[in-house]
Amino acid sequence: MWLAGNSIGKEFTVTSFGESHGKIIGVIIDGCPAGLQLSEADIQPELDNRIPRQPKIVSARIEKDIVKILSGVFNGFTTGAPICMIVENKEADSSEYDAIRNLPRPGHADYTSWKKYGGFGDFRGGGRFSGRATVALVMAGAVAKKLLRKYDVDVLAYTSSIGKVKLERQKTYEETNKNRFENAVRCPDTSCAGEMETAIIEARKQGDSLGGIIEVLIMNVPPGVGEPLFDGLDADLAKALFAIPAVKGVEFGAGFKVAELKGSENNDDFRGHEGEISTLSNNAGGVLGGISTGMPIIARIAIKPTPSIAKKQRTVNLATMEDASISVKGRHDPCIVPKAVPAVESVVAITLADHMIRTGLIQRVLEKEHE
Amino acid sequence: MWLAGNSIGKEFTVTSFGESHGKIIGVIIDGCPAGLQLSEADIQPELDNRIPRQPKIVSARIEKDIVKILSGVFNGFTTGAPICMIVENKEADSSEYDAIRNLPRPGHADYTSWKKYGGFGDFRGGGRFSGRATVALVMAGAVAKKLLRKYDVDVLAYTSSIGKVKLERQKTYEETNKNRFENAVRCPDTSCAGEMETAIIEARKQGDSLGGIIEVLIMNVPPGVGEPLFDGLDADLAKALFAIPAVKGVEFGAGFKVAELKGSENNDDFRGHEGEISTLSNNAGGVLGGISTGMPIIARIAIKPTPSIAKKQRTVNLATMEDASISVKGRHDPCIVPKAVPAVESVVAITLADHMIRTGLIQRVLEKEHE
Amino acid sequence: MWLAGNSIGKEFTVTSFGESHGKIIGVIIDGCPAGLQLSEADIQPELDNRIPRQPKIVSARIEKDIVKILSGVFNGFTTGAPICMIVENKEADSSEYDAIRNLPRPGHADYTSWKKYGGFGDFRGGGRFSGRATVALVMAGAVAKKLLRKYDVDVLAYTSSIGKVKLERQKTYEETNKNRFENAVRCPDTSCAGEMETAIIEARKQGDSLGGIIEVLIMNVPPGVGEPLFDGLDADLAKALFAIPAVKGVEFGAGFKVAELKGSENNDDFRGHEGEISTLSNNAGGVLGGISTGMPIIARIAIKPTPSIAKKQRTVNLATMEDASISVKGRHDPCIVPKAVPAVESVVAITLADHMIRTGLIQRVLEKEHE
Amino acid sequence: MWLAGNSIGKEFTVTSFGESHGKIIGVIIDGCPAGLQLSEADIQPELDNRIPRQPKIVSARIEKDIVKILSGVFNGFTTGAPICMIVENKEADSSEYDAIRNLPRPGHADYTSWKKYGGFGDFRGGGRFSGRATVALVMAGAVAKKLLRKYDVDVLAYTSSIGKVKLERQKTYEETNKNRFENAVRCPDTSCAGEMETAIIEARKQGDSLGGIIEVLIMNVPPGVGEPLFDGLDADLAKALFAIPAVKGVEFGAGFKVAELKGSENNDDFRGHEGEISTLSNNAGGVLGGISTGMPIIARIAIKPTPSIAKKQRTVNLATMEDASISVKGRHDPCIVPKAVPAVESVVAITLADHMIRTGLIQRVLEKEHE
Repeated sequence: MWLAGNSIGKEFTVTSFGESHGKIIGVIIDGCPAGLQLSEADIQPELDNRIPRQPKIVSARIEKDIVKILSGVFNGFTTGAPICMIVENKEADSSEYDAIRNLPRPGHADYTSWKKYGGFGDFRGGGRFSGRATVALVMAGAVAKKLLRKYDVDVLAYTSSIGKVKLERQKTYEETNKNRFENAVRCPDTSCAGEMETAIIEARKQGDSLGGIIEVLIMNVPPGVGEPLFDGLDADLAKALFAIPAVKGVEFGAGFKVAELKGSENNDDFRGHEGEISTLSNNAGGVLGGISTGMPIIARIAIKPTPSIAKKQRTVNLATMEDASISVKGRHDPCIVPKAVPAVESVVAITLADHMIRTGLIQRVLEKEHE
Repeated sequence: MWLAGNSIGKEFTVTSFGESHGKIIGVIIDGCPAGLQLSEADIQPELDNRIPRQPKIVSARIEKDIVKILSGVFNGFTTGAPICMIVENKEADSSEYDAIRNLPRPGHADYTSWKKYGGFGDFRGGGRFSGRATVALVMAGAVAKKLLRKYDVDVLAYTSSIGKVKLERQKTYEETNKNRFENAVRCPDTSCAGEMETAIIEARKQGDSLGGIIEVLIMNVPPGVGEPLFDGLDADLAKALFAIPAVKGVEFGAGFKVAELKGSENNDDFRGHEGEISTLSNNAGGVLGGISTGMPIIARIAIKPTPSIAKKQRTVNLATMEDASISVKGRHDPCIVPKAVPAVESVVAITLADHMIRTGLIQRVLEKEHE
Repeated sequence: MWLAGNSIGKEFTVTSFGESHGKIIGVIIDGCPAGLQLSEADIQPELDNRIPRQPKIVSARIEKDIVKILSGVFNGFTTGAPICMIVENKEADSSEYDAIRNLPRPGHADYTSWKKYGGFGDFRGGGRFSGRATVALVMAGAVAKKLLRKYDVDVLAYTSSIGKVKLERQKTYEETNKNRFENAVRCPDTSCAGEMETAIIEARKQGDSLGGIIEVLIMNVPPGVGEPLFDGLDADLAKALFAIPAVKGVEFGAGFKVAELKGSENNDDFRGHEGEISTLSNNAGGVLGGISTGMPIIARIAIKPTPSIAKKQRTVNLATMEDASISVKGRHDPCIVPKAVPAVESVVAITLADHMIRTGLIQRVLEKEHE
Repeated sequence: MWLAGNSIGKEFTVTSFGESHGKIIGVIIDGCPAGLQLSEADIQPELDNRIPRQPKIVSARIEKDIVKILSGVFNGFTTGAPICMIVENKEADSSEYDAIRNLPRPGHADYTSWKKYGGFGDFRGGGRFSGRATVALVMAGAVAKKLLRKYDVDVLAYTSSIGKVKLERQKTYEETNKNRFENAVRCPDTSCAGEMETAIIEARKQGDSLGGIIEVLIMNVPPGVGEPLFDGLDADLAKALFAIPAVKGVEFGAGFKVAELKGSENNDDFRGHEGEISTLSNNAGGVLGGISTGMPIIARIAIKPTPSIAKKQRTVNLATMEDASISVKGRHDPCIVPKAVPAVESVVAITLADHMIRTGLIQRVLEKEHE
């Protein structure tokens, strides 16, 4: 039992590689159109945004991840050839892991990975299943975002709740865009952000962790993007989002609330305006029949609390098959929601870039630019 | 803007075709192992289960869908060649659709389809985007289920809520299996089912419709099935579920509730027993790191209320781009949840069969059977 | 050992199904752009061209294959949904096959199929491995050709040799186009065609069969079509051509002759003319680095002699594993080259349509047409 | 016009990246089973074999290519995660290329690449289209070969002709295996190798180049490997072989000779022996109906003469569109056949490993090894 699943996208294809405590984390993009101005300076800020600069709420492993572009860019522009980007792992401290290599951590992929790969997996820091794998997503997402901006498409994720602290008042797009990276929890509301930080610090003190909800907003997707049935835009976005470790639920627009709505409440009436069609409400979250409506695409993503906690938990020793207990020391984030925000943005951007390249929309903009 | 998305699965590949008011609804399975005993009698009962025999809560278009196997089966066994199955459309009444062909129905794919396919789509009854496309899923799902039963894997979906009526008390697996198709709403609790029916009839009287939630339970999946990252079992299940028209949310295990749980509450402790490992709780819903844990896989799916309602709604005339209103007459289900139950079971079975064929597990059972 | 391989093409995806003596031969095209005028009348002539009307050189199983379009076409135009086309098998006579079901015919896939599918394959008439599977290719090829003609791309195959009879003098494009279907062997030179027919009749008398060479010429492909490396236009054409039963070799341009040429002889010098670049010779056969040069694409395909012959051959009885002999009676073509000509044209057209759809070229023409 | 084509293989998926004069040449293998002992020492000898140690017949750019494994291997074994391998480009001398950047070299992909990528391609040394891209193939091929050896499958390529010098007498498998890398032209016959070297040196003196033919032999493939129709083993091998720059023809078994054979001459009679079936001849080259017969798989590949030659050739200046002439200086091999031998072996091994992993054969051997 050992097969592959490290690529996503049909025309804009992203392949991820590398392990948490290995030499590098890397990513290949195959299918990026030629002629996009690109340098490491486009990628680095996105990587920097991955790690909140607030030591109280993040892991003690604070790496300055430096991107290197190894192929696919020449004279400052993409060439149409595969783009390889890597980050070297420098701060990895594997000392804690030998002690627990036979003790699968509850809530982690240690046990399922051991079962699937027959014990050959790199167990250090979760290896291939580490949250650190999202570094690859963020590098590829940065390129996807730059492509999408050619068409004015903007992808914006932010923290909507952490534990029981919820963002009650919806912020405008402009406020959200401006504020979310101004605080350590990536919440667009400053006072709410403060409460969230406090909650995380409190959980950490108890040797525990918190989960939360991330919302993502995609502006300016033209109507008609997506495919019917199996390759629906929502279907592909959901698949991509579940690739982020810790995601346990995905909903679009009114989401699970639709179950209690009547058709007359849930349907979004159409309205014409200067030759364009929009809807009066957006319960659909910008997708009907797997295809974009032209309204903002809205999704909510449930993130589970960090499984690695200091509190004692029950496990089984894989070598002896006897019951055991574990208290995970290592260096762990007491809440992975803030780091997951850029990952959400990235997989959404990657999926959307793929769909917009399939339709030929992005290529046409680039062509015009270079005429 | 016109591309393809009508196939799913890497090794057990299902391709759907046909339109609601066209000649047929059909499906091809490529990659079904040779040597599986199969005839139309295996498929027909699943198709029959699709349509509740209770005229008050379903569309007046009650078809007896009769499956025909056109290829891939010889002397009562699958041959390894593509299996083509079709159902002829006999009851289609397209008369209502000419009147509204320029009036996209709110909540439907009429507008997005028109935009994407430049007006060439078959608009009758939603054409390719009709709920009737799930007939193809059910035919393929029946084959997938038969394959999975070789490994004792069982997929069980049922209605958990309709509108505000919720199944409060969880039923056992045996009760659920026994009762769900005994009532028109596919709910394992008889009295709850009665309330759900009443709610649907009431909504219909008001010219309105209801949504609901479907739960799906997969028993006996061995640990180690699935892939990491992009092809995670949960990621692929989510993608497949969003292919069902009307799905707006998918969650696994504790789902969106994880956002409010602490790590110590959400983590499922491991326990060893006679050389096997299981977990004491199942908040993970049977999947960790995209790979099955060996515990039951549990998902919940939000289904929106039928968009076609008799109540007057606002729309836009595509020919004139002027505002208009629409009251959908035709023959429509006031609640699609009951018909969606077999569709959910089917896409889940298809996805799981694909993953278990990738690992070689099902082939080994068949091989032994024929030794 | 049983997996799938019945689809080809990334964006214009063709899936073949059906068996020689089963109910139907069918094909699905997923990814055909919407807005192409299409009816059975576009497909039927291509099917008619498949079977030479000359009883002396073809199998006694002369079917009038009648195409039916089951989905994907509405009001005379493609809708963007999957196009399903079938032909019913009417003339199948399976009586000969029971006698030889345990005697694999030398040169046929009987033995390899039996090994791979564990004896579950439909052995009648070669089942899935029959030359009759090319009916599916021809149906899909007819649609591909119609798409290509929107861009003035024309695909032309013809018989270049049969046994030792060779077309010595190259005919012009116009002559080839006009004459090749005027004779039973699909050779553009009438007198050469006569010699070929005689050779075939002679071989049949001896209970034997003949092979030959087919050439294919693709006109008006613009420069820049294809991908580098693994998805090169020549690589994809070769893969598609080897899908035709009996193909044993494929070469482009100067082909195997390049082995004896010097660089200065083989290189095609460039020449500019009114802003366009062409080459003075065409040893490359229209492809450099996997990408079209704008010159005609030229390939030659080696077709083996029909393996089913009346002459006695040695085989092994699969039931007893004892040596045996076989003389294949049934109804067989003494030379499959003529029937392979439309199959060659079809897979070439399918592959090229796929590549031109990937680049967006065909969609742009259709869009303009419907503006 | 810019899409992707840099991956091959369905389960054992190889993605190539990097440019001739860029920072690195690299490759990712996704889908390599876990538990294969692997280190750089398995890869390096294959890379060393790529470059003949005979300065008279190779390019002056003699790099010692040193492989680095960046991911997917832990504690000396593959983990099931993607394996990334790179070689740094150290010897690149780009000075010659600026002078000719607007002068497409006849026989090269310069012009088609320029057309496809709108001038953004890395033109130095052919960039992505350089023969140097085969370094990636050789690294991946080394892993594929190690997997295949678990099943005793052996892939052996050698030079069969260069220019007009042909290997007349077929050598045994053992001789071929022993001798081919003992000389600079990779020919199993020492005296023939000497003549080939002389011919190459002579061509170089004239400012010219030579092509040739490579044969490849695959031993011990069990019967039943491959898929029918589009994913036939021969079809996939052909596609992979055409990915090697300079390949213009591929044939299996009797190849183009089948065109002149009669069925009774070409068919390979079956013979039973101790419960196994083999054939008395092997005109099929080990493949029938796209599936292996159990006999050696044999293919012949035509390699064109190096297009880069010192002799003056005609071209067009892309900047001015005026006619021009070019004499390629740089550092070029006067014959690429010797370097193509390991590339042929590699793509054949990659394709075969993919097909044998699809069937589950290799996994079962590894499982047993680790029980």
